[in-house]
Order: sequence, then structure tokens, then C-alpha cells
Amino acid sequence: MDIRKLEHLLKRVKGGEASIEEAMAQLKSLPFEDLGFAKIDHHRCLRKGFPEVIWGEGKTSDQILSIMKQMKSTGQNILITRLEETKARALRKAFRKSQYYPRSRVLVYHSHPVKEEGKGTILVITAGTTDIPVAEEAAVTAQLMGNHVEALYDVGVAGIHRLLHERKRLEAASVLIVVAGMEGALPSVVGGLVNRPVIAVPSSVGYGTSFGGITALLAMLNSCASGVAVVNIDNGFGAGYMASLINRI
Amino acid sequence: MDIRKLEHLLKRVKGGEASIEEAMAQLKSLPFEDLGFAKIDHHRCLRKGFPEVIWGEGKTSDQILSIMKQMKSTGQNILITRLEETKARALRKAFRKSQYYPRSRVLVYHSHPVKEEGKGTILVITAGTTDIPVAEEAAVTAQLMGNHVEALYDVGVAGIHRLLHERKRLEAASVLIVVAGMEGALPSVVGGLVNRPVIAVPSSVGYGTSFGGITALLAMLNSCASGVAVVNIDNGFGAGYMASLINRI
Amino acid sequence: MDIRKLEHLLKRVKGGEASIEEAMAQLKSLPFEDLGFAKIDHHRCLRKGFPEVIWGEGKTSDQILSIMKQMKSTGQNILITRLEETKARALRKAFRKSQYYPRSRVLVYHSHPVKEEGKGTILVITAGTTDIPVAEEAAVTAQLMGNHVEALYDVGVAGIHRLLHERKRLEAASVLIVVAGMEGALPSVVGGLVNRPVIAVPSSVGYGTSFGGITALLAMLNSCASGVAVVNIDNGFGAGYMASLINRI
Amino acid sequence: MDIRKLEHLLKRVKGGEASIEEAMAQLKSLPFEDLGFAKIDHHRCLRKGFPEVIWGEGKTSDQILSIMKQMKSTGQNILITRLEETKARALRKAFRKSQYYPRSRVLVYHSHPVKEEGKGTILVITAGTTDIPVAEEAAVTAQLMGNHVEALYDVGVAGIHRLLHERKRLEAASVLIVVAGMEGALPSVVGGLVNRPVIAVPSSVGYGTSFGGITALLAMLNSCASGVAVVNIDNGFGAGYMASLINRI
Amino acid sequence: MDIRKLEHLLKRVKGGEASIEEAMAQLKSLPFEDLGFAKIDHHRCLRKGFPEVIWGEGKTSDQILSIMKQMKSTGQNILITRLEETKARALRKAFRKSQYYPRSRVLVYHSHPVKEEGKGTILVITAGTTDIPVAEEAAVTAQLMGNHVEALYDVGVAGIHRLLHERKRLEAASVLIVVAGMEGALPSVVGGLVNRPVIAVPSSVGYGTSFGGITALLAMLNSCASGVAVVNIDNGFGAGYMASLINRI
Amino acid sequence: MDIRKLEHLLKRVKGGEASIEEAMAQLKSLPFEDLGFAKIDHHRCLRKGFPEVIWGEGKTSDQILSIMKQMKSTGQNILITRLEETKARALRKAFRKSQYYPRSRVLVYHSHPVKEEGKGTILVITAGTTDIPVAEEAAVTAQLMGNHVEALYDVGVAGIHRLLHERKRLEAASVLIVVAGMEGALPSVVGGLVNRPVIAVPSSVGYGTSFGGITALLAMLNSCASGVAVVNIDNGFGAGYMASLINRI
Amino acid sequence: MDIRKLEHLLKRVKGGEASIEEAMAQLKSLPFEDLGFAKIDHHRCLRKGFPEVIWGEGKTSDQILSIMKQMKSTGQNILITRLEETKARALRKAFRKSQYYPRSRVLVYHSHPVKEEGKGTILVITAGTTDIPVAEEAAVTAQLMGNHVEALYDVGVAGIHRLLHERKRLEAASVLIVVAGMEGALPSVVGGLVNRPVIAVPSSVGYGTSFGGITALLAMLNSCASGVAVVNIDNGFGAGYMASLINRI
Amino acid sequence: MDIRKLEHLLKRVKGGEASIEEAMAQLKSLPFEDLGFAKIDHHRCLRKGFPEVIWGEGKTSDQILSIMKQMKSTGQNILITRLEETKARALRKAFRKSQYYPRSRVLVYHSHPVKEEGKGTILVITAGTTDIPVAEEAAVTAQLMGNHVEALYDVGVAGIHRLLHERKRLEAASVLIVVAGMEGALPSVVGGLVNRPVIAVPSSVGYGTSFGGITALLAMLNSCASGVAVVNIDNGFGAGYMASLINRI
Repeated sequence: MDIRKLEHLLKRVKGGEASIEEAMAQLKSLPFEDLGFAKIDHHRCLRKGFPEVIWGEGKTSDQILSIMKQMKSTGQNILITRLEETKARALRKAFRKSQYYPRSRVLVYHSHPVKEEGKGTILVITAGTTDIPVAEEAAVTAQLMGNHVEALYDVGVAGIHRLLHERKRLEAASVLIVVAGMEGALPSVVGGLVNRPVIAVPSSVGYGTSFGGITALLAMLNSCASGVAVVNIDNGFGAGYMASLINRI
Repeated sequence: MDIRKLEHLLKRVKGGEASIEEAMAQLKSLPFEDLGFAKIDHHRCLRKGFPEVIWGEGKTSDQILSIMKQMKSTGQNILITRLEETKARALRKAFRKSQYYPRSRVLVYHSHPVKEEGKGTILVITAGTTDIPVAEEAAVTAQLMGNHVEALYDVGVAGIHRLLHERKRLEAASVLIVVAGMEGALPSVVGGLVNRPVIAVPSSVGYGTSFGGITALLAMLNSCASGVAVVNIDNGFGAGYMASLINRI
Repeated sequence: MDIRKLEHLLKRVKGGEASIEEAMAQLKSLPFEDLGFAKIDHHRCLRKGFPEVIWGEGKTSDQILSIMKQMKSTGQNILITRLEETKARALRKAFRKSQYYPRSRVLVYHSHPVKEEGKGTILVITAGTTDIPVAEEAAVTAQLMGNHVEALYDVGVAGIHRLLHERKRLEAASVLIVVAGMEGALPSVVGGLVNRPVIAVPSSVGYGTSFGGITALLAMLNSCASGVAVVNIDNGFGAGYMASLINRI
Repeated sequence: MDIRKLEHLLKRVKGGEASIEEAMAQLKSLPFEDLGFAKIDHHRCLRKGFPEVIWGEGKTSDQILSIMKQMKSTGQNILITRLEETKARALRKAFRKSQYYPRSRVLVYHSHPVKEEGKGTILVITAGTTDIPVAEEAAVTAQLMGNHVEALYDVGVAGIHRLLHERKRLEAASVLIVVAGMEGALPSVVGGLVNRPVIAVPSSVGYGTSFGGITALLAMLNSCASGVAVVNIDNGFGAGYMASLINRI
Repeated sequence: MDIRKLEHLLKRVKGGEASIEEAMAQLKSLPFEDLGFAKIDHHRCLRKGFPEVIWGEGKTSDQILSIMKQMKSTGQNILITRLEETKARALRKAFRKSQYYPRSRVLVYHSHPVKEEGKGTILVITAGTTDIPVAEEAAVTAQLMGNHVEALYDVGVAGIHRLLHERKRLEAASVLIVVAGMEGALPSVVGGLVNRPVIAVPSSVGYGTSFGGITALLAMLNSCASGVAVVNIDNGFGAGYMASLINRI
Repeated sequence: MDIRKLEHLLKRVKGGEASIEEAMAQLKSLPFEDLGFAKIDHHRCLRKGFPEVIWGEGKTSDQILSIMKQMKSTGQNILITRLEETKARALRKAFRKSQYYPRSRVLVYHSHPVKEEGKGTILVITAGTTDIPVAEEAAVTAQLMGNHVEALYDVGVAGIHRLLHERKRLEAASVLIVVAGMEGALPSVVGGLVNRPVIAVPSSVGYGTSFGGITALLAMLNSCASGVAVVNIDNGFGAGYMASLINRI
Repeated sequence: MDIRKLEHLLKRVKGGEASIEEAMAQLKSLPFEDLGFAKIDHHRCLRKGFPEVIWGEGKTSDQILSIMKQMKSTGQNILITRLEETKARALRKAFRKSQYYPRSRVLVYHSHPVKEEGKGTILVITAGTTDIPVAEEAAVTAQLMGNHVEALYDVGVAGIHRLLHERKRLEAASVLIVVAGMEGALPSVVGGLVNRPVIAVPSSVGYGTSFGGITALLAMLNSCASGVAVVNIDNGFGAGYMASLINRI
Repeated sequence: MDIRKLEHLLKRVKGGEASIEEAMAQLKSLPFEDLGFAKIDHHRCLRKGFPEVIWGEGKTSDQILSIMKQMKSTGQNILITRLEETKARALRKAFRKSQYYPRSRVLVYHSHPVKEEGKGTILVITAGTTDIPVAEEAAVTAQLMGNHVEALYDVGVAGIHRLLHERKRLEAASVLIVVAGMEGALPSVVGGLVNRPVIAVPSSVGYGTSFGGITALLAMLNSCASGVAVVNIDNGFGAGYMASLINRI
């Protein structure tokens, strides 16, 4: 039942064409969404409030292309994550102005310029160079969601001076995203230096007992620094999304 | 080396009493903290930016009392977490105006009224009644950090209507803290209903394969809703702290 | 908004006192539950469709007593699980006709006789004698939910003839609940002998690598017999509840 | 020893050709199955009571073909699970009327029409689109076992309105199969909305700490909704089989 | 149906009193066990082939006493494992000639002298002194099952010379039981020195990452020495039983 | 220092050419092995007492060939395990009389006929057909070590009659090897039917929570039947070796 | 066979009283230890090279007292770890000059002054105050083994300035022991600041997903700083021992 | 701010050009590193104190080549670990005098001869031949860091005499690196024979429950021999680095 149907029913009540009992019976079983929550109906897992993100893994180029065309027709900006390079190449034939980030396997297409809505700077930090793909996914997500984003890469705790050297940039940030694999210690150190929310992202970087990011995840959950919260392993998109919500408070 | 020592050194340089070489040698090995970061020197794990929190577990009443007196003398508000009831009783003899929350084992003492600095409401939600102790720790923490806090308890996903019934309150909140044990599904549902950051707190409620909160933790890390980040099991303080930082952006 | 409020609104629309726009605005944000889903409002985790079950763990005798009195006043039958003996003794002073099962720590009070609604027999089977507490919780639950329940205890796979000896009873059952600890093999053997749904319940019986029931749980999930589904470790209540739902199909 | 042999032995006893001692000796060691449990002799792991299912993984096309021919000659319907597309193509050359489902990698061949024996509708639900392969395996299995099956896909908890919108279909079902990966929360929500048995199937959908379906499995075992039982990860066949047994009670 | 009933039925067939159809109907559903497998009917988990063992954990002194009296009346030797000292004291009032081993919490009562049936010596070895309780349980079990048992304690791998010093005794043994906690390395070294079967028993001795015996168990399962098989953590009884079966081959 | 050197030293002492001090100095640091333990020097991990087994994984065909030639030259029988088919083909060009078992990836070459030393029959049992590769590795190993080996495949617990049907063969065996994946229940049932040692071998057969054989392993370690010991996952060779040692007692 | 026996044998060979064959037979089976490795015979697990350490857990005061007296009589210094306070009190009645450290539950008795053998300073560092018991066990061990030991407590990574402030002491140390619980990040930061070996000790400090020290252990094993090696959780003794061996190189 | 800038500032203070307040403001925010810690700025994870090591995994040949050229230009020796053979071949075209070790996938290039700085011999030991790649990585690392390195391969505990045979070499070593997979017992035995620090390296050698080296790791952490510390699975580089730091004490 959409808005017009509801209006019609009420008019029929008003005009005496429908009895109150009849109207009540219909309204009781009223599908919640039909009251105008059209946008909710389009909500999808991993896309809430940011309807244009497409999870590229497990979809064919054709499937993605068809979604992109529909999106473009409604004027939405498009973000595709976990997109293999071969698929990206195929998609860019149709969407020539799209931009593909091979390290993070992200593709972005702008139907319209992004309007900056975030209040401060989101700073994306990595412990090593191998964490950059995850960080880039976070950075691109946050940019497309209307934030000013800066990056600070390869400042892991084994060379603590590299990090301290950049303390001004740490303190200037509004929200910080910290990506680290191996022992996952960087968010604790960063969290101890700033007074802002830190989103910690464990990366699957490492070998042996790094267990594909589990060690880093556990370390981050046990951070002795306050003001640190954690997302899933390699979930750059989730960190970028969370930071964007925070930056709009 | 504190401010006065630095000033003294510079004066001696200015007055020619100290050579430039001598001054440089001293400055090179200058302890960073001595330049006036006195508050940093007082930083402790779990207390950063919120110097008055005391982790009550493993400390005697006397040890805690001595810390409290020192804090009171400097006019700080005091928060003690994980404090057993017998210890609380002892402490309240000296601090009669302090308030003890037996469910969450938290004690609060106000040296001065809290100044509300948070922008919006922090809403603390639980799936069941057994999650309330963790939620209360979060709520008390956030209040003491200057936020307006509201609670919404016992709205777990097996009776989804209880939650939907409160949707206006969900949507009115600035930051949401969601505590759940067992299958830990509530943050996903809440995260799908609001467009605000959700801090998910796994609680150790459950039995068998709940594994003391691990199942809830894993579920929260894998939330299909965006805008959800997670803290350690039963870490109500950490969630309240994180939400407070966010609410000040 | 309850039924009367809705009726009132419609009357006001009909009478021209409320405009259609005004009515639509109110109806759009209509709390779903207020349309008469009162019973849903009483839904609670672990109690759905069976409103009178109380989880005894972590509640004081007084808290339980107060819930029981309220239930009795509405004529409901009462089931309390995980109730320590000392609490049971206190409760039975007020509810003298209640029955306490010390092995399974279950207390039952009949406000009215149970009406048998189940179609066939629910057969509760255990591998050993130490599994009986869990089995009894399942049996009492299923009885109170209106089923004929039979028990077959101590027929573990290391003495397979004990089980085969009872094959007629196995085949006569409508639904089977099989409780086993240690290697958890019994549901596979039972599942291979009958053509009926088997609810497997891992028990925490065992030592060393039984890991408090995890080994039995894993074995049951990997059953090579079809028609076996599993509930949480020691979850006799859940198995009895599930079997009751099945037995009413 | 089959029926005829037994009959022959008894006749020889009756006619005095065999002594009672001789007969007793033969009967004592009588293979249980030989008393007419011919169908039992054909029981195989994963095929009980549903003799025509073939586990396709690890078998060559030729091996499968030979089993199919034997089955067809006895007039049985055939179900092959976990069958790679290349093998399916080979098999369909010989069994042209067979139907292959590439998403779920299931092949079905009807030697005779399926007779509907299930009492009500089995509703197969998924949280996301990537869970559909597992759901389809369940649906095809249940159909071939004589049930009316309906599907409701992509109604995960992060967009709870999609699910609530379909509440009538949920309530109309006799048995519900719910497939979910990631945080595995959907069975809890569905279990809270219906009063029918829910078979929960964890799928291996997700990344990082989804651990190939373990997180979803744990969440489902800890469901706060009653009336939920769980099968192995990705075990669509098992869920369909279990639901079929239930639907015949 | 016992032997006499079967004989009676056959006689009735022979005499024409029972038709062949009637006889076949009865024989088809013939309970397997009734054909004279009386001893099987008495089999119980953890007691097979050795009917007099009683698992003491979770049984009251009275329950155990009643089982002991029944056993004594049939002239059986009695072995009780995992028996707390207080219970043992109570039992020894009635069974004065019984012997209690406080370290291993085992009680033995001889109704008749043990007949030595084992072929060679069973040698029970421990890595440290804290492993002795488990070893003693194994030794007492094997003795009561009719074996000559010797002990070699505290010869762990960190002082390899202690073990090599005893090589003659190692080589003289028929079966070896090796108990070790911590890193569980001893069975590998022993297995490399002898040409006889080694039963490895992980003990729960250790702390931190010994995980209550799991580390020792894993090490033993991965022994690079051939001829090593493993039983559950702390399962001295199981090792003694297995060694006894081997020693009778 | 070999026998001759020792003899020479003693002669020099006797003849006065070496002083007692000098001899003592040499003897104190005497390499233990040099006193004639030549065969020990050739011991290698996984080869003890059975020097001719070669672990094929990770070795090139050339490396294996060179070892085989050396073995052949000393008249030893040869067993190669975990040998890929392509390597086997290469080896068989040089060793034409060798036999390759593609299912278990084992290659055997007889330099001389095997002398049967085992006392009774070793019976190798599997739960399903997919367990046969592991069983075959055990069977071939035991045969080459001088045992009479029989096989009983595909008698898993979901069709318990298949197993009971073969009880005579079970009871006739001297040692039993039982291979099972999935829930790993078969050794418990077999262990309850016989009075002989059972070597349980978990296989990596299964999916989802079978965890590559861990579930079967745990179930076997927790067997409620006595007389069961366990080897590593898929370790057919180890089981065959252990059974051979037992069969020679 | 000790030195004198060997000398005697050689003399008998020399004097012709023993034939060379006879001597060779005796020497072949010569117990290795009897050649004078008396100290080896006294080796015990956890005591190697440091014979006077006693593991206090699981020993009675009387047992410990008896060992202490024997040690004192041979003039050894004594170290007892994991000793409960009540036992310590009993022991100190007999050994009045012994010193008990209640935090680390260590008791030390000097039969003679410790001779300092270590080359440089061993610096023991902790992340928090709750790590001090483990650190103290390490420090006392290292002191008794002849090292100069210094302590630097409560310098965790969330307040990095505290650590940097002490850099001179870090750089002055010869070996560093770093104890940390929770996220276990401190060894990585320390390892990045010094050019000396770091022994990392995970402590069981923390809650929830700290898993009793496992998270800290994993973090330390994955340290991105080189020159870090790890010992078992809470193994202060092991760290002190290892550091002592290193400090003597 | 580098040295010259600081000097300039002080000169301006001296000359009265800068006020003391101005100088203090600049000095307070002085970047720590700029005071001359240039070498620290070049610190990188996994490279500390040994700047020329390159982690080859995940880098292209071109990336590595560019780093190598820069290093060569500054006269540094170069170590590349985890380098695939195909990349090595490409690199050796430009660096002809470099040496590639295919087993350990390590490449070394000498810009200048290594100066031996280590005090004693570092002995690298393996349990089996499959552990050699890890051992070789350790050996090459230690050599390049200026140590005399010896190797002792294939002396696993199942043939303990091989190890004892080499005791003199064990005792002659200054530091020992012990690599073992499977049950990881070798470091315990070695640690019991020597009085020197042992670095234990778990290797991922094994199958089934070896869990890719976790079993060996756990065994090593639980070593009953003192003086053993552990590095990550397969971390030959880390062991060689740690041993080198120790050997310079």
C-alpha cells in the first residue's frame, strides 16, 4: 500500500464510502513499508544509508554493469568494492570516467560531485606498506561520503619516531582510522596520543601465528587505550563508513 | 626538565652563561614530557583523557582510597569500575556522597557537577535484562564524561516489535551503544534502522557455545549493517568512553 | 496508539475534524505494536509462544516469586529452568503444589491441567546416566507443552545392543530427542534407525578433550545420518520446545 | 538370507527335513538385515530414507552415471548434490530430461512425478543473495521429497522492514528453513515472529572473522528465540531433508 | 525372546501348531539380543570387557556402595576411578580390605586374586612427578586386568640421560604407557628407542599455553616416532585398558 | 668410534701403549652410538624399525629414485607414501615390478617376499567410501610389515546393520583399524563389539564443521568404548605401523 | 659405573685380569651418566643449570622443607616459585633468613652470597602495574643467577611518553625483559628502540578476549620489531633464566 | 627542524633576535626526530638495526630492484627474504654477484665483506630435512650479521642417538637455533643438554593436527627445559637476527 492508496482509503472513510471497521481492518495489517518508506525498501546489507555501494566479489561484470546503469540513471554516485582488475577493465569500457584503484580493488564513478559534509579531517593511518590496500578502501569510501581524508602510511610501532614525528597531523584529525596487521599495536599507541575516536582495522598482513589478521584483531579489542573500537578484518569500507557517520555528528 | 628549567636554560644562553653547544646537547636529549606535558605524565592505561577512572579489580580498599583522596584534593570527579560491593561499602565510609551501582559494580564521586559537553543523546540499548550491568557501566561513564544518556533495555531480536516500537528514540539518538550476549544480533538490526554510529558491546551472557561472549563478539564484527564498530567483551566503560569522544566531534 | 485511538482518529477523519493530511502523518509513524499486538509486547527472549517459562539463573527467589504470582493470577502454567535447589525450597513454601526436579533443576506449577496437543510420542533418549539431567529438562518442557513423552536412558553406542533392543520404541516415536556427551555419536545411530526428525542435544558430560560438550556438538553437526538438527550444549529446554513445535505440525 | 530362504528353512523344519537344532543354529547367526530389511541394506550415509541422493563431490562422471542408470532401472527419482558444472554437462548427455541448477550445483532426474506428501508449505528464507545457492539445495531437496516449497530471498536483518513486509508468508508456512552467513542473526528474528519450527543453516558467506560460516553457526546455536535447531555449515540438503521429515508428522 | 522361546516356536512349527507365516512374522522382529547375548546387555560405557570398573565422579558414596555390594556378591574384582578421598573413607568402612590410592584417586577391592594373563611387562613412564597420578591410574588398571606392571617416573626429555640410563628396562617391556604434560615430547623419544607399541597419555600438567593438556595431546598426535597412539587427556584408565588388550594378543 | 677402534684402544691399554688416564679420557666422551648401534644411526623420523619407508611429499622423483636404488642394493623392501601419480609413473620406469596404489598414493617394491610375522588378522574398517584411501595406506603398510590384512569398507554408523552383519569378522580379528571422518563415531561402536585393541584413524572427510578431520579426532579421543587409541588425521601409515607392532606381541 | 669403577676395569684389563672381550661387553652397555655426569643425574625439569629452583605449586610445606634442607646442606642457594603465602610462612619458621616476595609468590634463601657473573644490566619492564608479579619473578630469578637487574614498571604503549622518557635506561641495558598483558604491544615498541635482545613475556592480565594472555602472546610472536623472542604466559622464571644465559655469553 | 635550524634558533636567542618566549614556543613542539635522529627515521618494520633486509613477498622485481640499487649506492650489504625463484632470476641479471638460496628463497648481495662481530658459534639445528629451508634462512641471516654459523640437520628426537652423537658440537656453540615441526620436541632435548640460550623456531612441517606449525609452537612455549625462547612459525630470519644480537653481548 503506497501513499496514494492510503490517501484513497482515508478519502473513502471521509466520504463515507468505507466504514471505520473496514478501514481499521485494512490498516491493522498495513505493511509498514508501504507508508512511504520507499528508501528503506531499497536498503540492502552493506549498503545502508549509502545506497550506491556494490560488493564486487561473486558478481559477474554484466551483473555489475546492469546495477551501475540503473544507479547512473537515478543520478547516484557509485562505489564498487572488492572488484578484480579484469572486471574493472570491462566496466570501464562503459563507464569511461570511472576511476579504478588497483591496490584496493575499488572502482568509483561520480554522477555528480561529492558534497563535503564531514566536519573535520578523517586521517587514515597504516602500520606498514602492505596495509595500504585496506586503508585505501577506507579512504575512498570516506571521500565519496563527503569527507576530507588524509593518509599517513608506514608508521608502525617498531619505529615509533616516525609516528611521533607526525603528531601534529594526528592531533588535527577529527576521526582516525588505523590499519595494522601482525601484532596490531598501532591503534593503542595512536589512541594514547589523541583525544579523538579511533577506528581500528585489523589487516590480514602477516604469516604463521598472525592467523590472517586474528592476532591483530584480538590485540585491538584489548587495547589499553580508551577510545578505540574495532571492525572486521580487512574491512576498510566499514571503517570508512563508520568514520563518516562519526564525522557528521 | 620542566618549563622553568627550559626557561632558565634559554636565559643562560641569552646571558652568555651557557654556550650554544652546551644548550644543544641538553636539548637533544630533552625528555619530551618535561616540556609541560604534565597531564601526559599522569596518563595511565584505561584512563587517557579521562584521568579519574580507577580499575577496581585487584586493588585493595586502602589503595583505592588513597588514589581517591589524591584525586579529590585536585578537584577531579572520580569513576571506579569493577568494584566489588564489600570494597564499595568501605570506600563510602570516607566518601559518603559517592554513589555505588551494585549491578554494574561502578562507584562515582562528584567533586564538581558534570558539565554537559556532548552534542546529542547517547542511547544505551540491551538485548536482555542480563545485559544491563554492562550497559549501566557504559551509561554511567558517558554521563560522567558530560553526555545526556538514555537507556532502552530488553529489546532483543526475538521480539522485534519491542524494538520497532521505540524507533523514534532510536532515530533521535546521536550515538548508540548496543549491548547483547548470546547470538549478538541486536547491533545489526539497530544499525539497519538508524543512520548514526553504533558501538556494539558483546556481553558474556549465555551458556554452552556462547563461549563467554565470543559468539556475540564474532557476530558483531560480521554485522551486515554498516556503521557498527565493536569493543571488547563486557567493556561497558570502553563503549561509554568511545561514544563520548564521538559525541563531541 | 491502541485500537481505541485508531478508531477515534478515523472517526475524526470521517467527521471532518481531522484532515486527511493530518491523519496520514499520524498513521505513517504508527507504532506497529499499538495496532493490537498486545501479546507480542509480552514476548521475551526464551519465552516466545510459551510465555510462562522463567530462566532461574541469576534471579533471586523474590524476583522469581513475584513473576510467579503475576503468572498465577492470569491462570498460566509455570516452568522455571536452571533453578538451584535452595531457591526451589523457598519458592515451594508459597507454591506448595509445585513440583521440583532436582536432577534437572526444573520447577513446574500447574494453574490448570495440561491439554495434550502433540500428535505422537516424543521419545527422549540419553547415551549415559550423566546425560539424564539435560534429558529431564527436555522431557518436562515437552510435557508442559502438551505432549506425551517417553524416556529411554543409558543406551550409548559402546553397547549398541541396548539400543537395538528398543528399536520398536524408536520406530513408534513421532519426534526423538537424543542427548549425548563425550563423542556424541548416538544421534547418528538413532538417525539411521528411524525415519523421524531427531533433535540432537550435546551435553557437557566428559573430561579432557570433550571441551564441555563442544566435541559432542561438532560430532552431531557432522552426523552422517540425515534428519538430525542440533541445539546448544545442555539446552534441554530448547530441544523440548523444538520437539513440541514439530509435534504439532 | 532373504524372505524366501527363511520360508524355505521353516518349511524344511515343518517337513522334518531340518532338525530344530540345525534351524536354531542358522537362526542365531541370522544376519539381521536378511529378515527382509532389504532397503536397509541399501542405506548409505547421507541417503537414509531417501535412497536416490548422490554426493557428487569426489566422484567421476562415469561413476555417477553408472549409479544413475542403476537407479533409473529401478524407477527411482534421482538427486545429485555438489555436482560441478562440467560433470553435469556430461551427465545430461545421457539423461537429457534431467535438470541442473548451476547456482546450487544440484542435478535432479525424475523417473516418475513427485507425489506431494508434506502437510504444509516449507518456506526457504535467505539473509542475502549470496546465500541463495545453499537455499536452493534445500528447496530442491524438499521438493523432490514431496513438499510444496516457497522461497523468500534477501531479507537480512540490516533491513528489517523487508522481512516484516512478508510476515504473512512467514506465518503461513508449516516449516521454515533460514539460511544466513556473516552474523547469522536472521533465524533469531524469524523464530521470534512465527510459532513453527525453524531449521537454521549457517552459510559460509563472509570474510575475515566470519570464519567460513562458524560465526553464523555459533550465533544460530545461541539464538534467543525458541524453536530453532541448526544443521552443518552450507548443509542445504540436510535442512531440506529435516524439514521434509517434520512436514510429514 | 530367549533360546527356549525360539526352540518352542520351532517345535510348534514342526508340530504344525504354528503356521510358517506366523513364525516368520515373529522371527522378522526378533530382538537381536534375545538370542543369548545376555552378557552384552550388561555392557556399559567405560566398562566393556572389564565389567567391574566404576566411574566415581558424580556418584554418591551410597550409590557406589550399592554397586560394590552387588559386584562382590557375584565374586567380581572392583575398580573405582576418580573417587574423592572423603568418599573413599566412607566406602572403606564397609570394604575394609579395599585399597585406596590417594594420588590417583583409585580404589581397588579384590574378591579373588588377579590371574596374570598378560604376556610381558607393561612399563608405565612419566615425564615428571606431577604426571604420577595419571600413571598410577593406568598401572592399577593394568594390574587388575592381569598384567605385570612396572613404573619409571620422572624421566622427562629435558634431562635425557635419566631416560637413556634406563634403556634396558624400556627394551624389556612388552607395551609402554608414557604420560607427559607440558610439551608432551617424551612418547616421541621413547618411541624412537623401542620397537614396541607406545600408548601416549597427555596429562593436564602445565600452565599458560599448555591449555590443560591440549599442547601435550597435539604433540603426541604429531609424534615423528612410529608406533605411538594416543588416548584422551588424563585418561590413565583408558591407557591401562588399551595396554592390557594389547598385552593379551 | 666403532667396535674395532674400541678393541684397539683396550689392546693398547693392555699392552701398556696407552695409559689408563688416556683411555679414560677417550672413553668418557665416547659417542654412545659408536659402540655398535650402527642400525640406530640409520633411524630416521617416520622410519624407525621399518627403515624402508619414504615420505614422498616434497621430494623430487630423482631424490626418491636415488634412495630406492640404495635400498634395493641392500635387499630391503620399499614403501613410499604420499606419492603423487606423476612421480609414481616416473619411478615405475626404473622399478617396473613396483606396485602403485593411486587411491592411497602408495608405492611398494618387493626386494624379497614378505615374511608373515603377525599373529592374527588385522582388520581395516571404514565408515564410508571416501575413507578408503587412508584405510588402504594402513592396509598396505601392515601387509608389508608381515601381517594378514582384511578390509571391511563402508559400514558407517548411520546404517548400523551393515556393521552388525559383519560381526563375525570383527570378532575374528586380532587388531582393528577403524577409519572415519565426519562425526567419527565408528570406533566407539566397533570398540563396544570387540575385545581387541582398536586403532582409530580420523580422516579429513567432510565439510563445514568437520574441520578437516578435527571433529572426528575429538570424537575418537572421547570414545566411551574402552580399548581405543588414536593416531593423527589421515595417518594410515601410522595406524598400520602401530597395529603391526601390536600384532607381534 | 662411576669413575673409580671405570678406572678399576681398565686396571684389570691392563693387569690381564679382565679379557678385552669382557671389558668391551661391559663398556658397550655403559650407562652414560656413570662416567661422572653426576650433576646431570640431578637435572630436573625447570631446574637445569640452576639446580636450586623448586616449583612450589602442588607440593606440601613438608615436601618443600625437606628439599630445602638437603639443598642447604650442600651449600646451594634456593629459589622457590609459585609458592602460596601460607606455605611461605611455614617455611620461614625454619629458614628465618629467607626472603618472601608476596606479589610474585617467590621465596629466596641465600646459603652464600650471589656472585655477579652477568656482563651488563638486565632491565625488566612492564606495561602496567598488574604485570609486576610476573616481572618480579623474572627479576628475582635473574638476580639469584648473578646479574645486575633494574626495573621499569608501568610504561605501557597507551602513554608512549612514559617509555620514551626512559630511553637512556633502555639503551643502557644488556638484555631486556618486557612483560605485558592485554594487547601485548610493548615488546614491539621497546624492540624498535634498542639494539639488544628482548625477551617478551605475555601476562594473563586482561579480560574478555585477552583470553588469559593468549592475545598478548600472539601479538608478541608477530612483533614487527626484530630481536624479540617469547616465553610462555606468566613465565617470569623462564624469562629471567633465559636473560641470564644471554647475559653470560 | 634539523641541527642547523636548532643552532640558528639558539643563536638568535643569544643575539637577542628571538625572545625567550618565542624560542620556548618553538621548542615545545619540536619534532623529536629532528634533533638528529636521522638514522631512526630510516627505521622500518623488520629492518631495525639491520637496514638492508627486504621482505620479498608481495613486491615486484622492479620494486625490489630499485631498493637494491639505492642500497648498493650507499654501500650496504643486502638481504632479501621470501623471494620467489622467478623474481630472483630477474634480479640476478642486474646483480650478478648476488647469491640465491632456492630452498630458503633468500638472496644475498655483498657490497662489502662481512665483518665477523659475533663472539662464538651460532649452531643451527633441525629435526628433519624438511625443516632445512627455515634453518637456512636463519643461517644466512646470522652470517650476514657477522657470525660464524654451523649447521646440524636431521637430528630429530625419534632417533635421539643422532643428536647425542653430536654433543660436543652442541656444547661448543655460543647460541643455538633449533628448528622443528610436527611435535616440536627438539628444543626441549637440546635445551636440556646445553647451558646456552636456545632460540626455538616452529616450522610448518607436518599434516593434520600439526596445524601448520601451531602444535610445534605450543610445544616449544611449554618446554620443560629452561633457557628456551620462541619466535613465530617459520621465522628463520627472526631467529637468526635474535641469535646475532645475543652473540654480540
